[in-house]
Amino acid sequence: MDYQKVSEPIISELRSILGDSGVVTDPEKMEAYSHDEVPETRWRHLPEVVVKPENTCQVAQVMKLANREKVPVTPRGAGTGLAAGAVPFLGGIVLSLEKMNRIIEVDRQNLVMVVEPGVTTGDVQKCARDHGYLYAGDPCSADSSFIGGNIATNAGGNKAVKYGCTSKHVNGLEVVLPSGEVTTLGGKCVKDVTGYDLLHLIVGSEGTLGIATRIYLKLLPRPRFNAVLMVPFSELSEAIDLVPRLMTQGGIVPTSIEFMDQTCIRSAERFLDRQLPHNTAGAHLIIELDSSTETQLLEEMEQVSGLCGVHGCQEVFVGDNPATQEKIWKPRRVLAESLRVTSPTYCMEDIVVPVSHIPGIVKEINRIADQQGIVIACFGHAGDGNIHATLLKGDLPDDVWEERKGKALDLIYSEVYARGGNLSGEHGIGAKRKEALSKYLDPVKMKTMKAIKLALDPNLVLNPGKIFDVRKEV
Amino acid sequence: MDYQKVSEPIISELRSILGDSGVVTDPEKMEAYSHDEVPETRWRHLPEVVVKPENTCQVAQVMKLANREKVPVTPRGAGTGLAAGAVPFLGGIVLSLEKMNRIIEVDRQNLVMVVEPGVTTGDVQKCARDHGYLYAGDPCSADSSFIGGNIATNAGGNKAVKYGCTSKHVNGLEVVLPSGEVTTLGGKCVKDVTGYDLLHLIVGSEGTLGIATRIYLKLLPRPRFNAVLMVPFSELSEAIDLVPRLMTQGGIVPTSIEFMDQTCIRSAERFLDRQLPHNTAGAHLIIELDSSTETQLLEEMEQVSGLCGVHGCQEVFVGDNPATQEKIWKPRRVLAESLRVTSPTYCMEDIVVPVSHIPGIVKEINRIADQQGIVIACFGHAGDGNIHATLLKGDLPDDVWEERKGKALDLIYSEVYARGGNLSGEHGIGAKRKEALSKYLDPVKMKTMKAIKLALDPNLVLNPGKIFDVRKEV
Repeated sequence: MDYQKVSEPIISELRSILGDSGVVTDPEKMEAYSHDEVPETRWRHLPEVVVKPENTCQVAQVMKLANREKVPVTPRGAGTGLAAGAVPFLGGIVLSLEKMNRIIEVDRQNLVMVVEPGVTTGDVQKCARDHGYLYAGDPCSADSSFIGGNIATNAGGNKAVKYGCTSKHVNGLEVVLPSGEVTTLGGKCVKDVTGYDLLHLIVGSEGTLGIATRIYLKLLPRPRFNAVLMVPFSELSEAIDLVPRLMTQGGIVPTSIEFMDQTCIRSAERFLDRQLPHNTAGAHLIIELDSSTETQLLEEMEQVSGLCGVHGCQEVFVGDNPATQEKIWKPRRVLAESLRVTSPTYCMEDIVVPVSHIPGIVKEINRIADQQGIVIACFGHAGDGNIHATLLKGDLPDDVWEERKGKALDLIYSEVYARGGNLSGEHGIGAKRKEALSKYLDPVKMKTMKAIKLALDPNLVLNPGKIFDVRKEV
Repeated sequence: MDYQKVSEPIISELRSILGDSGVVTDPEKMEAYSHDEVPETRWRHLPEVVVKPENTCQVAQVMKLANREKVPVTPRGAGTGLAAGAVPFLGGIVLSLEKMNRIIEVDRQNLVMVVEPGVTTGDVQKCARDHGYLYAGDPCSADSSFIGGNIATNAGGNKAVKYGCTSKHVNGLEVVLPSGEVTTLGGKCVKDVTGYDLLHLIVGSEGTLGIATRIYLKLLPRPRFNAVLMVPFSELSEAIDLVPRLMTQGGIVPTSIEFMDQTCIRSAERFLDRQLPHNTAGAHLIIELDSSTETQLLEEMEQVSGLCGVHGCQEVFVGDNPATQEKIWKPRRVLAESLRVTSPTYCMEDIVVPVSHIPGIVKEINRIADQQGIVIACFGHAGDGNIHATLLKGDLPDDVWEERKGKALDLIYSEVYARGGNLSGEHGIGAKRKEALSKYLDPVKMKTMKAIKLALDPNLVLNPGKIFDVRKEV
């Protein structure tokens, strides 16, 4: 694909669409738009221009222009992504949704909130709470991530065990297509089989098939009671073995089941500068429960505690008020940041396996870590089989790190696929896992994805080079 | 598109793939494959041949042959569809999944059931129940419909208010694509953002993008307690007004909220040959609640009864055991059949609106019925805004019926779209609503769907002429 450079006439046209304040060409000001939260410098690239539309019409006009001139457009939320999905590796236009940040409507009759893509997930959650509802999407980056970015990556997070990932909470999208045409998929209806489910094709497509400019989110009645349990286990394997049994033996669907291993416990301790209880434990589980009645909550807590006891836990700490709950959640929330301090160069993975395979895959990752002589911290969303195995460079020389990391990842991915798992549970493929995807994904699925991309974006102008590479001839 | 006829050499090749017992050419035996449950004769067409594969490999071989020879293939489940989606209007091959009817696995560790497409939904439900779980898909045709057909239409049903339509219960699909290639989308992982969500693109695509040959269904812990309430209202509008308030004011998500109007109550009475309680009521609501604890169930029942009282209901009948529950559900379950007896020629619609618009649209439908001089019975899934407005021919002469039906439908659809609604909530477009879809659907969405169809099925051999008409040149 031959792309055009962003020429002076194109800049002029962009200015006429967006006004001067909506067009940024100063390299210093564009630096912030050259990366997401993947730390390594190879995952950075400056755009030729950053545009900041304020409404759908402007987004559509930019896309029409880009499609006509064959200039790549990389849509961008808050830049909290973990797969270099919003990095403009081919230059061109970065289209930042930061100015489209209005909450348009809270529709109490239909339990739908209508927002623009640049609202932070935290503000969506707060607005729902203020109106007495629950918005159940809850990625760890909620305070800073944009809801539009959550849509693009189908973000998961802490409540996905019970409530599912972002796609479950999206009822409708207004979308600007690569052609610059605008359509609305879904809306306020609860059910719809009027043609193909294009809505869920756009969600999770990492900004390669369309740009969401208006988002219809589902609200739920807010559960009135919740509790957070922290359960230390002397062995990681005991903790992990318990996870599938909570749901199958207990018949309980917790809101969250998170785990962190010994390396993570120590890392969080250092970062928070306080001693955690049972800090010599092989692993901590955090289990959150919620319910609309107190009796049900108490019954479930009792059942969970009972199962924990049977599976060898040492003690169950209960957080039954916001202060104690925050104390339990805090080490988990700061984990990614604390690992970054422990080792500024690291590689956070996002593998997912069927829940029953969690014990096996975590054991295998530890074996690979020992074998390759590399530290791999394991934490993540145990309840849905999503493990953020995080490879830490520590003091390793650059070349040794690169070599060991490459070998370890290859071994981990092979084990994941052997267990019916996948590369990414919630962070996406972006640019970072593109090469791995081409190696591990079923070629028929890959071919089908490429055919859809070409059908919707024949000029390959919308976020090209993400998820896969495709040529017009394919 | 120029299709080939099914020639003798093609029949021979089909026999070599499927054996003699897997190939039917006798017109008498093929008659059953010429229609679904849409009553009017214009929605019937004989295939040239019916094939009955027994495994994925045979399905793939048939598709490869059809794709090579440009012969249309119409996949077929149990033929319980309501949109003529499985009728082979262009002749060619009907591919019946009836022999692929094995339950392959109940995976207790991952809460997944793996089945072939020809298992009836009722058998899926029963198998889940026998293992202590809930399969939450529950279309009204469950006893006879195939789970593969549920996937194709993204079937809704009685439990969709709380648990969602079929797509929410599908975790993975093995799919034979129009090319005859086979791929598996999803599987036993709970989360997955490894590339586009092709799984949910296939679900609800009415057999136009792929044939599901193996299905991974989610199982849920089975709620231990449930109750069914029957609530008569003197005015339909009172009943309907209550619906959005149950969820918003009550904070309750019932399993079902069904309604039937006066015409339906009388029709069910005649069919069952017994008097229903409050048979002069303007409408009956059926509300089902389920819970994992008895106390929560009782609390919710009290809340619902309270709200019903405030909104003018006359009395609340409670079904708290299987016998009384069946008594309440029976009139609703026989409704479609009873209307068929009342008027052998009828037209059952499947419109869907945002829940808050139910009162308005039902009032409008009644007004249109009066104005056009036609009987329209209204019933359906009030909890998710899905109304089966059913136009009854009764004694009208054929030409008058056709004219009034056409006018009434046009008026109804216009009102539905004016309220942010859609043509179909759970039955699909098939052939029956194709013309209406082309009139009411956003042209950009239509164009996008056609582009995807052409990308995946460039020879247009898989269930052509359903949902929309498309030519290669588009």
